[in-house]
Amino acid sequence: MSDPLAAEVIAGDRRALAKAVTLVESTRQSDRARAGQLLAALAPHSEHALRVGVSGPPGAGKSTLLNRLGTRLVDDGHQVAVLAVDPASAVGGGSVLGDKTRMPDLANRGAFIRPSPGAGGRGGVAHATRPAILVCEAAGHDVVVVETIGVGQSEFGVAAMVDTMVLLVQPGAGDELQGIKRGVMELADVVAVTKADGELAPAARAAAADHRRALGLLRSRTLGWQPPVVLTSAVQGTGLDDLWDAVRDHRAHLEHSGQLSARRREQRLEWFEDEIVQLAMEWLGQSSRDANTGLRAQVAAGRLPPPVAASRLWEQLRGR
Amino acid sequence: MSDPLAAEVIAGDRRALAKAVTLVESTRQSDRARAGQLLAALAPHSEHALRVGVSGPPGAGKSTLLNRLGTRLVDDGHQVAVLAVDPASAVGGGSVLGDKTRMPDLANRGAFIRPSPGAGGRGGVAHATRPAILVCEAAGHDVVVVETIGVGQSEFGVAAMVDTMVLLVQPGAGDELQGIKRGVMELADVVAVTKADGELAPAARAAAADHRRALGLLRSRTLGWQPPVVLTSAVQGTGLDDLWDAVRDHRAHLEHSGQLSARRREQRLEWFEDEIVQLAMEWLGQSSRDANTGLRAQVAAGRLPPPVAASRLWEQLRGR
Repeated sequence: MSDPLAAEVIAGDRRALAKAVTLVESTRQSDRARAGQLLAALAPHSEHALRVGVSGPPGAGKSTLLNRLGTRLVDDGHQVAVLAVDPASAVGGGSVLGDKTRMPDLANRGAFIRPSPGAGGRGGVAHATRPAILVCEAAGHDVVVVETIGVGQSEFGVAAMVDTMVLLVQPGAGDELQGIKRGVMELADVVAVTKADGELAPAARAAAADHRRALGLLRSRTLGWQPPVVLTSAVQGTGLDDLWDAVRDHRAHLEHSGQLSARRREQRLEWFEDEIVQLAMEWLGQSSRDANTGLRAQVAAGRLPPPVAASRLWEQLRGR
Repeated sequence: MSDPLAAEVIAGDRRALAKAVTLVESTRQSDRARAGQLLAALAPHSEHALRVGVSGPPGAGKSTLLNRLGTRLVDDGHQVAVLAVDPASAVGGGSVLGDKTRMPDLANRGAFIRPSPGAGGRGGVAHATRPAILVCEAAGHDVVVVETIGVGQSEFGVAAMVDTMVLLVQPGAGDELQGIKRGVMELADVVAVTKADGELAPAARAAAADHRRALGLLRSRTLGWQPPVVLTSAVQGTGLDDLWDAVRDHRAHLEHSGQLSARRREQRLEWFEDEIVQLAMEWLGQSSRDANTGLRAQVAAGRLPPPVAASRLWEQLRGR
């Protein structure tokens, strides 16, 4: 252990944790070697947590549920981290996830809550979060929650870095599956219907039945696993045990069936591929800027077909 | 003109046209040099057509409208080509666009109708279609229609290769904007409400009013242009003149304002960038396979953090 920051992280120093996460999330090339060194030093201490993805449409009650569930887990002795993957920030909107004020009780109990970094990160939404999971684990967190809003592609990115994916749905307004796409539903290892209380209770039960039926027709991404549907109420605090039991059952199933190690292996290799592509793109961006701009001018003027000009530029770049 | 295939294409040989399009659409690396040579030979004869994108949700009546509109254009002396960009084929489904049987009258009149190539093409949905436009132009087509289904991202790809983007919408079932996303609506240069006949006529008028209101609030991608909304009926043949007038007005506006040359210039440069990225990705795929597999094994086993392994592999690749 020659890395002092790594030593502080492993010792549980909270400021070191925040600093380490910032470093590994950095998109600055000058931080890359340092971040790699840190991750290498932390590697023997990571990979042990239960990694849970939580996704759901806006308004499904993600924060409220995570606040209650996380609080309970902390009270039971778990060290909880919540990392946010915010698809909105990638398209220029503000970050709405990972805000501590949205999970006040959980924040007060010392959980590590981290908003997603701003737009333009390399490697898509997933880039910053994958190394942050490792850092949180090395710092002693045994439950790492990665939350995202269920719009667009971010669920796929999150599913590719967690063990267990929880999909939140709220009691629907008549629309059977709330426009959730089949592909997204197939990512779910556990489905939790939120707001199953008061006036919404009957609608919540109906939504649960609808989703059980739909899930019965789909292929689960976990072999030999039928995703359970649980009813939850963050307001009443009901169903949280059922939800957590379902998450632990799923994780146990992954372990016993050998799928946990296979899944993590795949995820590491995917991350590896993404990083190489990213390095290639950065190199390409720089090299192209420095390269023969005469080709660009000819392309812009329509004098040279783009594929022809690209082949020529590529030969120049490869020749260096 | 040393390319015999190019000479045949320019002479209007129909079989040569089909063969040329197949060549430029090819994803085989061995075809690349030949395709580039062909495009270079055709370049002085291309770029003159009116390029029109047509997008709309499934069921909006794209084929029926294109069949009627295209037939009319052919009868007026135009040479019409219809190229399809099929997002479904990219995710493994079958191709449903560009089928001649969907536009029987247009096919019978000798229009060039081309389905999109299968899945897995490089450069996304747009890859094969951009060079195909140039080939069709060189073969004498003065109207090139690029059609796509309005789901997902394909509208953006199509908008990036045409002059005028026509968005089709059908009389809605109460849903004001049919779930069309704001970003997609902002791509539209012309909006055509389909099925404006019989029982649906009042709903079509309401849909037109809704869209005019919405478009008034959005930024058009063409400066100084307020996208018109026209009512059409393929069954009755009404509104087709209005639609074509709107397309020609838009094109004239682009020309007079200097935006046509600017837009095409940008599109050529985008294509150029996409081609370079594609070449880099192909090289990376091959080189990585040949490179040190010991790194992969270490990553898979969790012994080396993916970013660290990626940096090492990248150094190896660059050193070659």
